[in-house]
Amino acid sequence: MQTMKQGAPWPPATMEPLTIAHQATFSVGGTVTTHPGTFTTHSMDPAGQTTHGDHAFIACQIPVDARRLPLAFLHGDGQFGRTWQTTADGREGFQTIFLRRRHSVYLIDQPRRGGAGQSTLAPTQPLVAKDQAWYEQFRIGLWPERFPGVQFSGDPEALDQYFRHMVPNTGPFDVDVAASGVAALFDKIGPGILVSHSQGGGVGWAAVLKQPEIRAVISYEPGSNFIFPRGEAPAPMPSSGGELHAVEVEPELFERFTRIPIIMYYGDYIPEQPSPNRGVDLWRVRLDMARLWAEAVNRRGGDVTVVHLPSIGITGNTHFPFSDLNNVEIADLMSAFLAEKHLDL
Amino acid sequence: MQTMKQGAPWPPATMEPLTIAHQATFSVGGTVTTHPGTFTTHSMDPAGQTTHGDHAFIACQIPVDARRLPLAFLHGDGQFGRTWQTTADGREGFQTIFLRRRHSVYLIDQPRRGGAGQSTLAPTQPLVAKDQAWYEQFRIGLWPERFPGVQFSGDPEALDQYFRHMVPNTGPFDVDVAASGVAALFDKIGPGILVSHSQGGGVGWAAVLKQPEIRAVISYEPGSNFIFPRGEAPAPMPSSGGELHAVEVEPELFERFTRIPIIMYYGDYIPEQPSPNRGVDLWRVRLDMARLWAEAVNRRGGDVTVVHLPSIGITGNTHFPFSDLNNVEIADLMSAFLAEKHLDL
Repeated sequence: MQTMKQGAPWPPATMEPLTIAHQATFSVGGTVTTHPGTFTTHSMDPAGQTTHGDHAFIACQIPVDARRLPLAFLHGDGQFGRTWQTTADGREGFQTIFLRRRHSVYLIDQPRRGGAGQSTLAPTQPLVAKDQAWYEQFRIGLWPERFPGVQFSGDPEALDQYFRHMVPNTGPFDVDVAASGVAALFDKIGPGILVSHSQGGGVGWAAVLKQPEIRAVISYEPGSNFIFPRGEAPAPMPSSGGELHAVEVEPELFERFTRIPIIMYYGDYIPEQPSPNRGVDLWRVRLDMARLWAEAVNRRGGDVTVVHLPSIGITGNTHFPFSDLNNVEIADLMSAFLAEKHLDL
Repeated sequence: MQTMKQGAPWPPATMEPLTIAHQATFSVGGTVTTHPGTFTTHSMDPAGQTTHGDHAFIACQIPVDARRLPLAFLHGDGQFGRTWQTTADGREGFQTIFLRRRHSVYLIDQPRRGGAGQSTLAPTQPLVAKDQAWYEQFRIGLWPERFPGVQFSGDPEALDQYFRHMVPNTGPFDVDVAASGVAALFDKIGPGILVSHSQGGGVGWAAVLKQPEIRAVISYEPGSNFIFPRGEAPAPMPSSGGELHAVEVEPELFERFTRIPIIMYYGDYIPEQPSPNRGVDLWRVRLDMARLWAEAVNRRGGDVTVVHLPSIGITGNTHFPFSDLNNVEIADLMSAFLAEKHLDL
């Protein structure tokens, strides 16, 4: 089925013009591997040839009169920098919203994903149809229904765009390789703030342990790699979406989490009690572990906050609060956090 | 080997600020495939699940007071939209250069590449080390030497960035699927100009036959899929980089090439006589076939020009003239062509 989209007028009615001082793309980090043998000029044989891979790909925009600390945005599983761009229903995403608010914005494609596709290892994930599984796991509803009040457009074209945001891993997912790419960005740009999502949340925790230039973390629904001091990790948490395992490091390393402000946001439709619904139940244990992790960091003098959005009266959010219909309200929360912590000077 | 880049101050000294009216990303075209069976809610099994794939991914920026016809940029083999962004040595690429010249700019990632990575078919290309083969085929020099006067930075960091521009195919390369993605963009945005590179040149010729909204083509070193009227295709052209084959279509369809202005640019170091050097010899036959193709279109009343840059005194260009050290001069040529054909109103 070929989809030809005539659709709405394009481009949409002009928005407020946006003035930027600089925009650029570049790679950071990564490795170089060499195939055994010797390269012979004119040859197509891999012998002696190199592969530059496992870097992160960065797209940055810097506004005029930028605030001091840039924002670096890291996507989750199956996604790339586009996560933060135009929403599936065509509104501005966090990239442009925060650029307008005078933040320098760096979008990261983690190693082996999207624009950072050149991997030094062959991909291992088979191609599997899973749009409907994502739909449920990303909490729009139970396919093909929508949760009551869900903050996602009912336009079928928006859902089509949404499914097309996905990209495959072009090499094995490796939290250390991904975190090294994120850390390398901060080597280049200096102090800044990491904004992460889902699987990227866990990559971000690993990056914080590598990179003191990460001065704060804002994480939307972090979903993996919660790192506890050795001996303090909670037992694996079973859910109908699988078991969630914590990770342990030496307490001296764990201390790094206590040095920066961290906030995590979780959306709606996450049950309090175990549910047979895989797509929501897996978030129940993630929210539970996020709370335990916040307590573990705060016991040692840290500054970690967990915000379950419905508990502050913000309802209908999916796994992607920053691109949901109320994403300006979600951005306002983030701006308020940055102001409260004096991170927006 | 982990590369940590401290390098030059970042961001670089402020450039002239850039004011844009709108920026957005979205997908166009593509297909939906369905795995046999019936989807059961909460299931991870592929049965009955869909895959939205084979679309093109678009990143657009529209300047204030934009010229009427937008520019849509299509990359070549192994590349994605980044081809047109920041150069490997950190200068502005055609994306920003032409945005500053008040052109609306659409960067295309063709289906199964980069940000359009979700394919409905599994990838078929094995992971093979080939940096050095690309280096020679892209005509920087014969590894590890550089051609005398080559318009590519001698900074090792630039070469590192250059190699990291590559991304794999995430599904089989299919000229028709790629051209359908390009055509779908023009369904959305209406009349515009296609700017293509290398393998994308051939995708572009196929797109022209599908899409009358493509009002002109500017192609840098088109390298495949030269389409002749049935019975007029030249014999396969042997080179030390393989044989180049022309493609044939019915003359009525071929006529479409006569309706729009087309210009092709080729760079330096392309031999006039057969050479044992694979990396340059394969371009010899492509330039030869481009000339034959221009004659074939022009015989029927078309307007096709081939510019071999050294013949107009511009030397040192690699396979990527638009990102070479003299890319502003190359952009000026393109602007002059657009003005001459009244395409820049």
